[in-house]
Amino acid sequence: MDTWNDISQLNPTLLCATSGDTRFSSPPQLTAKMKSWHPIPTASCFSLANIPFGIISTPKHPLHRPAVAIGEHVLDMSVFAGQGGLANLGEFPKEKMGVFFEQTLNSFASLGRPVHRLVRNYIRDVFREDTSYPEVLKTNDALKQAALIPLSEVQMHLPLAIGDYTDFFAGRNHAHNVGTLFRGAANSLQPNYNHIPVAYNGRSSSVVVSGTPLHRPWGQALLVPTNHVPTFRPSAKLDFELEMGMFLCRSNALGQHIPVDEAGDYIFGFVLLNDWSARDIQLWEYVPLGPFNAKNFGTSISPWVVLADALEPFRSHGLPNEVDLQSYLRETKKENVFDINLELSIRTAKGASTTMTRTSSKYLLWSWPQMIAHHTVSGCNLQVGDLLGSGTISGFDSGTYGSMLEQTKGGKTPLLFEDGEERTFLDDGDTVVITGWTATTDGDVVGFGECSGQILAPLPQK
Amino acid sequence: MDTWNDISQLNPTLLCATSGDTRFSSPPQLTAKMKSWHPIPTASCFSLANIPFGIISTPKHPLHRPAVAIGEHVLDMSVFAGQGGLANLGEFPKEKMGVFFEQTLNSFASLGRPVHRLVRNYIRDVFREDTSYPEVLKTNDALKQAALIPLSEVQMHLPLAIGDYTDFFAGRNHAHNVGTLFRGAANSLQPNYNHIPVAYNGRSSSVVVSGTPLHRPWGQALLVPTNHVPTFRPSAKLDFELEMGMFLCRSNALGQHIPVDEAGDYIFGFVLLNDWSARDIQLWEYVPLGPFNAKNFGTSISPWVVLADALEPFRSHGLPNEVDLQSYLRETKKENVFDINLELSIRTAKGASTTMTRTSSKYLLWSWPQMIAHHTVSGCNLQVGDLLGSGTISGFDSGTYGSMLEQTKGGKTPLLFEDGEERTFLDDGDTVVITGWTATTDGDVVGFGECSGQILAPLPQK
Repeated sequence: MDTWNDISQLNPTLLCATSGDTRFSSPPQLTAKMKSWHPIPTASCFSLANIPFGIISTPKHPLHRPAVAIGEHVLDMSVFAGQGGLANLGEFPKEKMGVFFEQTLNSFASLGRPVHRLVRNYIRDVFREDTSYPEVLKTNDALKQAALIPLSEVQMHLPLAIGDYTDFFAGRNHAHNVGTLFRGAANSLQPNYNHIPVAYNGRSSSVVVSGTPLHRPWGQALLVPTNHVPTFRPSAKLDFELEMGMFLCRSNALGQHIPVDEAGDYIFGFVLLNDWSARDIQLWEYVPLGPFNAKNFGTSISPWVVLADALEPFRSHGLPNEVDLQSYLRETKKENVFDINLELSIRTAKGASTTMTRTSSKYLLWSWPQMIAHHTVSGCNLQVGDLLGSGTISGFDSGTYGSMLEQTKGGKTPLLFEDGEERTFLDDGDTVVITGWTATTDGDVVGFGECSGQILAPLPQK
Repeated sequence: MDTWNDISQLNPTLLCATSGDTRFSSPPQLTAKMKSWHPIPTASCFSLANIPFGIISTPKHPLHRPAVAIGEHVLDMSVFAGQGGLANLGEFPKEKMGVFFEQTLNSFASLGRPVHRLVRNYIRDVFREDTSYPEVLKTNDALKQAALIPLSEVQMHLPLAIGDYTDFFAGRNHAHNVGTLFRGAANSLQPNYNHIPVAYNGRSSSVVVSGTPLHRPWGQALLVPTNHVPTFRPSAKLDFELEMGMFLCRSNALGQHIPVDEAGDYIFGFVLLNDWSARDIQLWEYVPLGPFNAKNFGTSISPWVVLADALEPFRSHGLPNEVDLQSYLRETKKENVFDINLELSIRTAKGASTTMTRTSSKYLLWSWPQMIAHHTVSGCNLQVGDLLGSGTISGFDSGTYGSMLEQTKGGKTPLLFEDGEERTFLDDGDTVVITGWTATTDGDVVGFGECSGQILAPLPQK
């Protein structure tokens, strides 16, 4: 399986995950190059190479506020900034300090990538063993006490207020696999697929943060394809879709497109995303206007936004495209997807966890800048806080597929779980957990933590 | 043509429209039952039977703020409430008075229909000839001077901050007409059409208020259907779609559906809506995930929200549905669409205006409560400020069709304009104007004003 990079046997999920999942028995052997005076487990997702941003609250202090994750702690940015932690950061615009006291990251994001870079580099410096600013935190016990909170004590919230959520269909292997199920391999991809980054508008109100349970949705499904009379019931074909999500940090004016080579300036950062999908509802409803109730009951994202800069070392080519691209999709620099290990597991109500998918975020036909360029070529205005999903990411082999629909061949081949249970689609009580991480050649890990969600029994209809 | 009610020859558009359109030569003959001490032209859209809410600004006072429209004036609600105009309205919660000083109507909407009713009835009483509160405004010259502003002097803005915008496909005649063009009359409606209120998620960021010009969108189109190689160009098949839009005033929690008979409590009010559509882009992009760039460059709405209560006298049956509905779509009360005269005209760059469409908002297969019930049956959470579009509304005859696609039979039969020009789709410089109004049997007019937008030349690609 070529979808896994060299650190797969040194799985940092063990330390990233907050679910207590201990299925990885081999201890991490990575040695981070960037040493910190603060204890950071060697294979932590939140090494000094990362510095992801999120929104936290605590039982004692329930107001939502920005934080960054460092090892097994968070740095409460409202406390850190409020007690002068950023005073040495001369280039940071003082009049913008309020962004660290807001309940979402939108205002921080809107300051733009040069400011994100400034703050990220500074925080990394503050935490380095050989920090230039020991008095800021390393030797400042009072501020450490006030601003550093164990990850296990914080509640995470949606990192940004999402204006619009768009989901692309850039995972060509997924498109091919699903198309093959419906139309046969020869016609698996629609004629437009290689020319246009196909996408649909998603539902922004129901994007939820990791850990939020979702009730199985009710909807119409066609049980007897020939009679055209649907049945109303809780979905019997509930699936996950393994995706990456991108948050935007810059807006374009209505009517003004974003050139593909400038699109990188609009990227705030990335999260893991589960585009839950009710296949039976989707099949009946989606012609001719696309998926609606099959997906609008909930979309889960991981809580920590890994900044675009943190993923720079992991740039990769995506999947090759054999057609001549339209001018607005031609990139000067080609490596605009990322090679991040993605893993998805299902934990049953009884507690047994089975890994379903191991793949890489590089298996996309369309890059992130191409998605932005296409989205705006019509003049559509993107806004700070918008979320763009990649579409389901699948590798080339069965164990790398990003949905149960693909792995079970449309529900025909059940999957055997480690505890002997079987699934064609998700059962009530199942928890789907996505993790994602990678590491530099120096051994510095950059990970996302987890994106999890449990499926609850359907609520009764009133 | 049965799409026009008895007042069609007494067209209040003459007085509603702010475009100076004088194509209606017959003077309005309506006699409003509800007399006002304030001069309200007899056929004004904004009679005492209406009292619509909007968001205004003025050159002297650029802050966005709520207002209601009365005849040819607006009542600035921030001034009216700020100077004690609502002091007599004992039932209005005093701690909520701030809603009239906000820059959108979301907070006012969120107070719920009983409060909207209270305020609307009170304002109507204040303006009546025989008002119970003459001292509030009728004899209060200072407040009249401060709070009443000529409509011609205000700039209108989006009435609510829109979280999510959903567009339905409830105009069955439109679905039939378009389906016939693509698949022939026998297969015009998809098998799901009569069972499910088909909808797609729209783009909320590009919903604009009437009067906002839009640049012709660029996009991919397939010019030679057999070669599957698209061309990148400004859309050559730009169209309008005549719709109604509904704003919501109440949220449901994620996972909780809204029963169809309770859905009326969630309706704030209605606007006119133009779902601009680039047909060439749409045809190439929409399989399999629905329309995207073909529509996301802009959606226009009229600025005044006609409250749900104001439309109560105009309830109507929609189009009959021959199939047995699923339980969650069965309504106890059936009259849940409205019979409102809708008219659409195109004004060319040279200034000549031609009426393209005259129809009624009653030509819907699915009612507004059915749209809400279906949208939430999966557990999707609707929110205050969400906008739901009806889908294109077409009557049964050519002059009643809500899109050029239908009227020109897919672009094959050009439309002749009054000044001798021809169109199959929209030209640069064309302005599309939608108006809507109705009247009680007593002669009290309730209208929407206008929803207009001009198409500008495409911007060059960078």
